[in-house]
Amino acid sequence: MPLERLFDPASIAVIGASATPGKIGYEAMRNVQAFDGEVFPVNPSGDGEVFGHEFVPSVDDIETAPDLALLCVPAAAVPDIVEECGEAGVGGAVIFAGGFAETGDDGAELQDRLIEAAEASGVDLLGPNTSGFLVPGDDLYATFTTDLETIPSGNLAIVAQSGGLSYALGFRAQNIDVGVSAMVGLGNRATTGFTEAIEYFDADEQTDTILLHVEGTADARALLATCESVETPVVAYHVGEQDVGDFAESHTGALTGEYELYQAGFEQYGVPTVRSCAELIDAGTALANCPEPDGPNVGVVTAQAGPGIAITDQLKAAGANLPSLTAETQDVVEDILPGITFAENPVDTGRPMPEFGEVIGAVARDENIDIVLVYELYEAALGYPVEDLESVVEAVDKPIVFASGGPESILDEELPKLEAIGVPTYRTPERGADAAAGLVQYAVRNAPPEAAGAQVEVRADD
Amino acid sequence: MPLERLFDPASIAVIGASATPGKIGYEAMRNVQAFDGEVFPVNPSGDGEVFGHEFVPSVDDIETAPDLALLCVPAAAVPDIVEECGEAGVGGAVIFAGGFAETGDDGAELQDRLIEAAEASGVDLLGPNTSGFLVPGDDLYATFTTDLETIPSGNLAIVAQSGGLSYALGFRAQNIDVGVSAMVGLGNRATTGFTEAIEYFDADEQTDTILLHVEGTADARALLATCESVETPVVAYHVGEQDVGDFAESHTGALTGEYELYQAGFEQYGVPTVRSCAELIDAGTALANCPEPDGPNVGVVTAQAGPGIAITDQLKAAGANLPSLTAETQDVVEDILPGITFAENPVDTGRPMPEFGEVIGAVARDENIDIVLVYELYEAALGYPVEDLESVVEAVDKPIVFASGGPESILDEELPKLEAIGVPTYRTPERGADAAAGLVQYAVRNAPPEAAGAQVEVRADD
Repeated sequence: MPLERLFDPASIAVIGASATPGKIGYEAMRNVQAFDGEVFPVNPSGDGEVFGHEFVPSVDDIETAPDLALLCVPAAAVPDIVEECGEAGVGGAVIFAGGFAETGDDGAELQDRLIEAAEASGVDLLGPNTSGFLVPGDDLYATFTTDLETIPSGNLAIVAQSGGLSYALGFRAQNIDVGVSAMVGLGNRATTGFTEAIEYFDADEQTDTILLHVEGTADARALLATCESVETPVVAYHVGEQDVGDFAESHTGALTGEYELYQAGFEQYGVPTVRSCAELIDAGTALANCPEPDGPNVGVVTAQAGPGIAITDQLKAAGANLPSLTAETQDVVEDILPGITFAENPVDTGRPMPEFGEVIGAVARDENIDIVLVYELYEAALGYPVEDLESVVEAVDKPIVFASGGPESILDEELPKLEAIGVPTYRTPERGADAAAGLVQYAVRNAPPEAAGAQVEVRADD
Repeated sequence: MPLERLFDPASIAVIGASATPGKIGYEAMRNVQAFDGEVFPVNPSGDGEVFGHEFVPSVDDIETAPDLALLCVPAAAVPDIVEECGEAGVGGAVIFAGGFAETGDDGAELQDRLIEAAEASGVDLLGPNTSGFLVPGDDLYATFTTDLETIPSGNLAIVAQSGGLSYALGFRAQNIDVGVSAMVGLGNRATTGFTEAIEYFDADEQTDTILLHVEGTADARALLATCESVETPVVAYHVGEQDVGDFAESHTGALTGEYELYQAGFEQYGVPTVRSCAELIDAGTALANCPEPDGPNVGVVTAQAGPGIAITDQLKAAGANLPSLTAETQDVVEDILPGITFAENPVDTGRPMPEFGEVIGAVARDENIDIVLVYELYEAALGYPVEDLESVVEAVDKPIVFASGGPESILDEELPKLEAIGVPTYRTPERGADAAAGLVQYAVRNAPPEAAGAQVEVRADD
């Protein structure tokens, strides 16, 4: 598989390895200590050992060529070293150094030389100007930054144009106990761009959803075509609605721009778009852990009216459709809770009650409903309707997402019970709405607007 | 002070008190156990004690009239009991029961009778159709819901139209270690509406910012005039951009609507508006804990470009102005960090470094800058620039907010050091941008658009 030696190596060379703490060549060595494969510190002036590995003077001197090389050397030295790597049989190289296309004409020329060297010698590059990548499930931390081992392993692949933003995403995930299959900063995308990375993680068995951060690329249409072609759900955080001037260009050598083109393309191909790191992960966990929605119609069940109204407002702003429940479902709900506060859609039970899970089940079974969003404040005497929901999840093949509020320590204990039965959970009303909005936008893949009456209705509402 | 006996009582009667767990009259008794004042369970059919307090048959039988009565009785009985309370000398009453204006004509008539009784007898009402209020600093939990004691005491007053949403806000605050001075669900606002509550918390010494949740009110102009007149910053979460149909009316008897009128009014009077519970608290903590901004001009300092671009994009979308730094400041920054990645505004140091705090100081001292927003990924070898920032905070009287990312356990330990010197902290880039956007919107109070060239420029940018 392309990029396999880069992202799933059996052995790693750290070129420019150093025994001096603070140097990138030292930090990278420290980070690969947990890796369960051979590690070679490469430095012609290296002497003795670093982290128990003996220095080798050159990548040539390693008997079996390592799959991956981490290049901890200045920009000017990079093209030649990549050439050496290729000659030695290295498969992939991470280029940490900046000073390429993001810095102007001289840098762009250096980057062209680098690409030439890589292509001539068959080495796949990550970067340059990247902080690298990590695969927590393989204890693989191909980066020079610290404190990454707390980011848990999971099923979301983060593919970010910016390394800094990939860390912001990874730590946000860690902070809310969400795991990642990989976290990649693409940097200048010399040979590994969005297309190559998305296709790799589409084929990756650990990845159930790809989270994309995009500032801009010279070929937006190729990126959009890739999003259309892959099987794995993709969610996009596309920065650059506003003019951020030449700041963006100074960063990864790419202009932000063509915002509307991206947004229209993402919408057309069922790529949910978000406006923050938090939303990107929230929409991603819903797509990664729920059955695919057959259509964009959301049924909202709430135990408190105020949060229910906030959710409804936000869902409608995101273009969701909240169809009426069938007369049959409304009768079932009235049977369960005679005199219920509000039994259309949203269904509002007024407060948590033992029958709450049954009401969710009735809405989830409704033929008008493709996606169910629940809000319930935690109430100690009742707990969450885990048993009811378990049988609903088994009976209907629809996404059900659950938003709640309550004391942190109780939520930490109780919400994982819902996660365990395939119901993603969110700790504010609006985060639940963001997650459901992601499912709604994704549903275009299964219910194209021209075929879906309900979707047309959404547009008429706008 | 008006409403003082309601919100700051010395003694409480629970009318309809019960010894049966699960009943509202029992739950309310349990919640007032922590209260440091006299508590009287009132029930003509009560026998013996509940939570160590002896039942009294009627509020009349209490020797010194309690300041506050919590009415745990059905709607139909409420007007007469309020009248009794007034005759006995009670100052305020919380009406938990629903079944008033939110349910139709009969309910509206009952609510009119209730208002008449309250006004005739001088009792201030909270509700009806409310879950009550709490003041954590006084161990006062005037509500029937559970698990509220984890919500910490602090300087934000939550005034929510919906009780359910007030809980969502309170628990969000608790989950991110933010404290509240009070948390109030207004419900049907029979006599205590937005105006009365805002004026009360404006005068409350524990409150530094008021967080408002609004679905709608018959007199939007009165609400806006109150927001204009008070000294304490107000932030508004106004739900109802979209048509949520008759669901909202079924809730607190108020129609959402006139969204544009509210938004324009809030903008004019320097009331920042937000779109979620999380944003409401984030903007609130910035306003409550920073000096007031003199104007809307933001200086962004980032140690990572990607998050810096995301922040800039979001700030500009919120209408913020990012002026150029003075030539003098740019020289200072270049002196501190020769060859810095990007030294205009944003200032991008490329990665965390020992001089990062000095750079923040240079930007904070710039005469073009009113508000400083910092993003820095946590790096163990450096920590946060607490000492540098402490001297900056003392030297410049400007808001400085700090967004960061990193492992939860490290952030839990390190970020409070910034909080302690008056720098509010946020754990994703965009949450920092939301907080700064709140400060920008508030700055209209100190720099009206007609007087501020920079503000005019913002508008030309839109």
